[in-house]
This record gives sequence, structure tokens and C-alpha cells, in this order.
Amino acid sequence: MTPAQHKSDRPVAALLVPDILALLEDAPGDVAAETEEMHAADLADVVEAMPREKVGEFLRALSPNRAAQVIEYLDEELRSEFLEHVTTEQAAEIISEMTPDDRADVLEDLEEETADEILSDLSEEEREETERLLQYEPDTAGGLMTTEFVSVEQSLSVDEALARFRAKARSGLRESLHAIYVVDVEGRLVGVMSLRELVAAPDGASVADVMHTEIVSVSASADRKEVARVTSEYDLVAVPVVDGFGRIVGAVTVDDVIDAIVEEQTEDVQKLGAVQPLDDPYFVSSFWDVARRRVGWLVILFVGEMFTGTAMRAYEETLAQAIVLTLFIPLIISSGGNSGSQSSTLITRALAVGDVELRDALLVLRRELGQGVVLGACLGAIGFVRALLWHSGPGVSAVVAVSLVLVVLVGTVVGAMMPLVLKRLGFDPALASSPFVASTVDVTGLVIYFTVARQLLGLG
Amino acid sequence: MTPAQHKSDRPVAALLVPDILALLEDAPGDVAAETEEMHAADLADVVEAMPREKVGEFLRALSPNRAAQVIEYLDEELRSEFLEHVTTEQAAEIISEMTPDDRADVLEDLEEETADEILSDLSEEEREETERLLQYEPDTAGGLMTTEFVSVEQSLSVDEALARFRAKARSGLRESLHAIYVVDVEGRLVGVMSLRELVAAPDGASVADVMHTEIVSVSASADRKEVARVTSEYDLVAVPVVDGFGRIVGAVTVDDVIDAIVEEQTEDVQKLGAVQPLDDPYFVSSFWDVARRRVGWLVILFVGEMFTGTAMRAYEETLAQAIVLTLFIPLIISSGGNSGSQSSTLITRALAVGDVELRDALLVLRRELGQGVVLGACLGAIGFVRALLWHSGPGVSAVVAVSLVLVVLVGTVVGAMMPLVLKRLGFDPALASSPFVASTVDVTGLVIYFTVARQLLGLG
Repeated sequence: MTPAQHKSDRPVAALLVPDILALLEDAPGDVAAETEEMHAADLADVVEAMPREKVGEFLRALSPNRAAQVIEYLDEELRSEFLEHVTTEQAAEIISEMTPDDRADVLEDLEEETADEILSDLSEEEREETERLLQYEPDTAGGLMTTEFVSVEQSLSVDEALARFRAKARSGLRESLHAIYVVDVEGRLVGVMSLRELVAAPDGASVADVMHTEIVSVSASADRKEVARVTSEYDLVAVPVVDGFGRIVGAVTVDDVIDAIVEEQTEDVQKLGAVQPLDDPYFVSSFWDVARRRVGWLVILFVGEMFTGTAMRAYEETLAQAIVLTLFIPLIISSGGNSGSQSSTLITRALAVGDVELRDALLVLRRELGQGVVLGACLGAIGFVRALLWHSGPGVSAVVAVSLVLVVLVGTVVGAMMPLVLKRLGFDPALASSPFVASTVDVTGLVIYFTVARQLLGLG
Repeated sequence: MTPAQHKSDRPVAALLVPDILALLEDAPGDVAAETEEMHAADLADVVEAMPREKVGEFLRALSPNRAAQVIEYLDEELRSEFLEHVTTEQAAEIISEMTPDDRADVLEDLEEETADEILSDLSEEEREETERLLQYEPDTAGGLMTTEFVSVEQSLSVDEALARFRAKARSGLRESLHAIYVVDVEGRLVGVMSLRELVAAPDGASVADVMHTEIVSVSASADRKEVARVTSEYDLVAVPVVDGFGRIVGAVTVDDVIDAIVEEQTEDVQKLGAVQPLDDPYFVSSFWDVARRRVGWLVILFVGEMFTGTAMRAYEETLAQAIVLTLFIPLIISSGGNSGSQSSTLITRALAVGDVELRDALLVLRRELGQGVVLGACLGAIGFVRALLWHSGPGVSAVVAVSLVLVVLVGTVVGAMMPLVLKRLGFDPALASSPFVASTVDVTGLVIYFTVARQLLGLG
């Protein structure tokens, strides 16, 4: 009774493959009927587990409508591969079954030549609609939106509106849109209502009576982050998209918003790990593409870290006088990096979800100063005991302890402030990655350590 | 025409506060009507920007229904503060206007005593429903679900079902649920349809004709991660929740799923920054709570990093013979940490979104070995030149170069494998934080460096 619990497991999808392949061999005409009961998303999992050379045959055994549904759930690579290997007519037939936004997404992933061929095979109406959608950047509201939505004029009665909706839905509205948009004679968005509200409206009411005028909308050029923020803040299932004149041009549905949230999050996480975000999933990205997106940051960090050498050369004399100091170098500088990573992660994420804003900078500074003192004191105490146990003597042990307090304090403050400064300068706060913070703090940490050593041990 | 563009900006909310406070002073009876046009989420922003002592007065000036809507959008702290300061009757009146799942969420955040008092003031039906919801863990499907949903028996005709829906919606269904669940005589979930499909169904059809039987559902005890995965994979706006007998007990709506996704992501990011996840937003968490959640990992990392001291003591003699080696220690070990952070971040995220699975471990290993060689060669080449420019001599420069290649290789592989190993052992892969990977690689890096130095320079 809870099919989702097993249906969506990929291993199960893989188990179905032999049966489906056998059926495809013996009775290809039955494939469509036999797989009818399955969710398109699950069928896509089966396709992904199938030998590549069988994919085309299998998809062609389904109806174009069903094949289109399955293809919408396939991973991009397999989808493009399939569409580039069937005839243009077959591809066009399948693609014309898709919702306009998915259609544009799919075409965007194809080779330009193939996409153009398929486009020219679509009906004029479909082609124009798709070309309009393709004009928007993929990461904007325009790029995410569908043009399939229901709008009614505010002057209609509820019964007329319901009849309009019913006609539109029966004529093959494929998006599961749940909001009905109300427009004035110029097509400008003036209200919104849910289908539920329309259905539940008292008899004889007009659309204007039922609609809400507190409309939340985004412009077609709005970034997907903004779309995600609005959807999440106002608990919407779809956000209407308007042009510069306030006319409704489309709607972004929540399923695409969720995908956008997850992709944004992936980018943020990759930035926090000092990787330039990948465009595609890990295995879909080519080896050299991944290497290219890593080497940039690695080299920047490496060059930054070279200053540790410069710092140590400056204190070469101090080091020579107390070689035992060397033993604690990695311990001390890594403590600054670790506490800094914690702070930068906390603040970057708080900025991303809106818990902290730029104007909170002073509050953040005050709090992180406190955190730095507390955390530094803890590590300083442990470090002091450890140094004594290593027979480093009370002098060196004190140097270690004092340095740890200061280094952790600096790490915490630098880590917390870096995302705020980056944001203030118009950069992405997520660039304040753990390795970046650590590298910045390493040099400072060495300077602090040797300065403390000179002072407390009276070295030159 | 695009109110969202300015409406949701907090600075604008703050600008409205003086006007609203003046109105509250002069004509409290007009507050409800004057703010009627505003979205509840925006009004919540206004409340958050208001002096604390005015909040109660303002919310009481609204109708209980409207106040409930606004309170649902308030941040937890302010909400609890308000509800703990009004009379129990007032609180109960407001809370009974909320949807059952929000009601349970709000009560969960209150002091137990206050929550019990409010609960006992609710109607018996509301109390039982709320108590039932409170039994589920907040992070499970049961904790996220609402019990307000529409179910119809499969034997009904489409017209009967529509009438049933209309009656339920008119009687005050507050959730914007868009799916209609079809049950058998035992209450077991056997089908699902959207309101759109019901409305668009041909005349004379029965519910059983229209419904889909490819149901995706979750059990009440399913983790919110599972709920999010299912919602996202199947592009749902609501997921039905079933008990052990397959009977529908509730539904999780997509707005709560988005909140859950964002919270899960926050937890993952914090883990990747070596912070035990906070329960509350940054400023809502107390200073000592934050410190407590940081110090654990810092101490673990610190203790781990102590082995760098042990490693260096083991090579004290080597060091004494070529003190120049010291200069490159931070540079070399940080390079291992940085490349390791990149790999662990990439793989942890790929695991979280399902791009990589445990059985891909060998593929990951092969790819990351390659990445390590390429990235190591780049840094090794730069390091070699830098060492020569520092007049370290060809021998030491070669040691630096070879060590860098090996350290980056080890960092890359360890960073990539650690999340997979953690997952295999049943731990959260996100525990493979950048600082954790860096600490692990630091010790290895030192051993590699000194071993290479001994070999190439012929030291003891």
C-alpha cells in the first residue's frame, strides 16, 4: 500500500529491467500496456538502468505522450543522447507532448543544430512559444516558467470562470497548476485565486468577489534565488511571472522551484568547499571540466599560503633559537583555520537563508569575539597541558597556550566577517570557503605565534 | 503591479511601522481594515520590525483568524513570546484558527505548561487532533503532515465527489491542498487525483475512472529527508501519509517540504563546516548553545592535529639537518587539506542529491586518483619554481615538488573516500567536513614530506 517505499529505489528499478527487456523482445506491442501502472519517474529509473542501446527501442514502444513524460524525468545526458539518435520527426513528436517549460529545457541541452531541426518540426504555435521561452536565461523566472496557465478576466462570473477552466483543462493542460490568475482587459495581473476557492465560491459570485488582490509575483528577469525566496516566504505552489507592464506571461511551479533551490544549494556547498560550481552532476561533468573548476581555487590558495613561508623566513632567527617551536606550528595554525571555518560556514548559511543581514555585522562581530575567547580558552588550556606533557617546559607551553587563544580569536572573527565583507563588496558570501579562511588565517597564525614566542621567551 | 518586489523587503516593512503604530494609537478599530490588503507574510515582517511591547496590542487588534495567519509567519521566538504573554483564552482562540499542522508546530515551541493550558482550552476535536500530531517526531512525515485533507470513496461519482469537496472547502478547509485522495471502505489509500482532474472529468464518470492508482505515499514515521526526496523526485505538491495498514492519516504539503529541504541543507552545510547543527537560526540560538556545538568538533580536530607534533618529533633529526624544510611545512600540508576539502565537498553533495551512490565507490576512486595526479602536478610545478626562487637549492625544491604531488594525491583520495566510508558505516557523510579532512591529511602530509626529504636528500 505504500508503493513509494520500494518503487523509487533504484535497485528495484534495475530488477525490473530483465523482464521489460524480455517483453520488448517477445511482444513489443504489450510494453505500453504492461508498464501503464508505473509512475513515469519510476519508469525513468528503469530506463537509466537499461543498456544504452535498448533505450531508443523501449521509448519508441511507448506512446509519444508517455515517452515524453518519462523523458522529462531522465537525466540530462541520457535524454540528449536519445533525442540526438532518433529521427527529427520522432523527437519533435515526443517534444511537442511536453509542457512548454520542459520543452525549452530539453532543447537547451541539445546540440544547437539538432535543437533547431526539432524546433522547425514543431507546430507554428509551439515553435513560437518555445522560442519565446528560450530567450530567457535558464536561471531566471522567465527560464523556469511555463506558459501554460489559466487566466480569466475579472468581469466573469464564477460559473463562467469554472467553465473556462474546465474547457482549458479538458483541452490538454498538462501542468498541474492550481492557481487561477485574474487579469484586467489589458492582460495585467490584478488578482489570484485557487481552483479550490473557485470551486467553493458561493453561487452567483463574480471572479472579482472571490479573488485575492494581494498578489505576489516576480518579473521575468528575476533570479531563480528570488523566485525560490518568494515561493518559500509566501508558501506558494506557483508564482506568476509578469512583464514590464505587469502583464502575466507565465508561472513558475513549485516543482521547478524545488529543483532551483537544490541546485542553488549545490552551488553554495561547492563554493564553500573551494570548487567553482559544476554545471552538471559529478559523473556527468567531464574529468577535465572538474579539474579546471578545482585548479583555479587550489592555485589561488597555494599562492596565498606561500606567505607562510615568507612569514617563517622573517622569524628564521627566532626558530633557530628554539627549534622546539616548530613542533606546534601545524597545531596552532590549523586551530585558527578550524574555528574560522566554523564561523564562515555559520554566517554564510545564515546570510543565505536570511537569518543574518548585512546590517547585523556589528552584532555578529560582538558575538563571534565572545565565541573566539571561549573557544580559544578551551583549546589554549588543552594545548598548555599537552605541551607540558611533551616536556616543552613552562615557557614554551605558555607560548602555545597564549598563541592558541589569540589565533582562535582571530580565526573566528576573520571567518565570521569574511562572508559579510564579500557580500558588502557585491561578491557571493559563499566564496568564504573553509580553505580560503584557513589560508588567510594560517599566515596570521604564524605571525601571532612567533610574536608571542619572542615576547614571552625573550628571543630575537 | 509587482507588489512582491517591494512588499517583502524588510526595510519597507520597517517603514510601515510608524504609520501602523500611529493608527493603533488613534483608531485601533481601523487597524484590521487598513491592513487587510497586505499579505500575512508581509504583515509578519512588520510585526518583527515593531517594538516588542506593541506586538500584543497590534495582534489583538486583528481578527483571531487574521492574527493566526500572521503568527504562522512570525519567527519562532517572537511567536512563543507573544503566546506566552496573552491570556490562555486569547492564545487558544488564535491557535484554533490555525491549520492542524501549524497548530502542533506552534505548541511544540512553547513551554510545556503553557502548551498544556492552551490545549485544554481548545475544542475536544481540535485537542485530540493536535495531540495526535504532537505524538510524531517533528522531523518525520507525521510531524510535518496536516490532517486536513479531502478523501473520497472510490465508489462515488465525479459529481458526488465534487459536491463533497465543495462542502468540505466551504466549511473552512484552510490548507491549500490540491490533491484528492481516494480510499476504499476500510480507509486505505487506493488512488489519487488532482482537483483539476476532478473538475475536468467527463460528465457521468466515477471517481474510480478518474483516479490514478500509481500512488506515491510515505509512512508517518518516514524521515523528512525521505519526504523531501519523494516530493522532489515525483514533482508532487502534496504527499499522502499512511499508517501501517495503508490508511491515509494526513498529507505533507509542499510548503512544509520546502522548509524541510532548507533546514536539512542548513544542517548539512553546518556539518561540512565542522559545527554540530544548530536547532535554531543563528541569532535565535543562545551564545552558549552555539559555543557548545562548536567546541566538540574543535577539540576533536585539535586532538587529531596533535599527531602532527608527534610526527614532527619523529623526524626531529631530519629537521635539524635541514632547517630550511620547516619553511614549506604549512604550504605542503595545507595543499593536501585544500584538495581534500574539494573532494569531500563534491562527493558529500553528490551523495546528498543522489548523483553518486555507495556502489559508485570504485568509479569515484578512479576519477579522484586522476584528479589528484593532475592537481598535484600543477601545484608541484608551481612549488618547485617558488622553492628555487627562494634559493632553496634544487634538492629541497625537488623534495617540495614531489611531496606536493603525493600530498595532493592523498588529500584528494582521502577527501573523496571519507564521505563514502562514513556512509557505508552508517554515519552521515556530511561529517567529512573540510576541517576534518584537512586534519586527517595534515599528519599524512608531514610523514610524506619528511620521508621524501630523507630519500631525496639522504638525511637521517
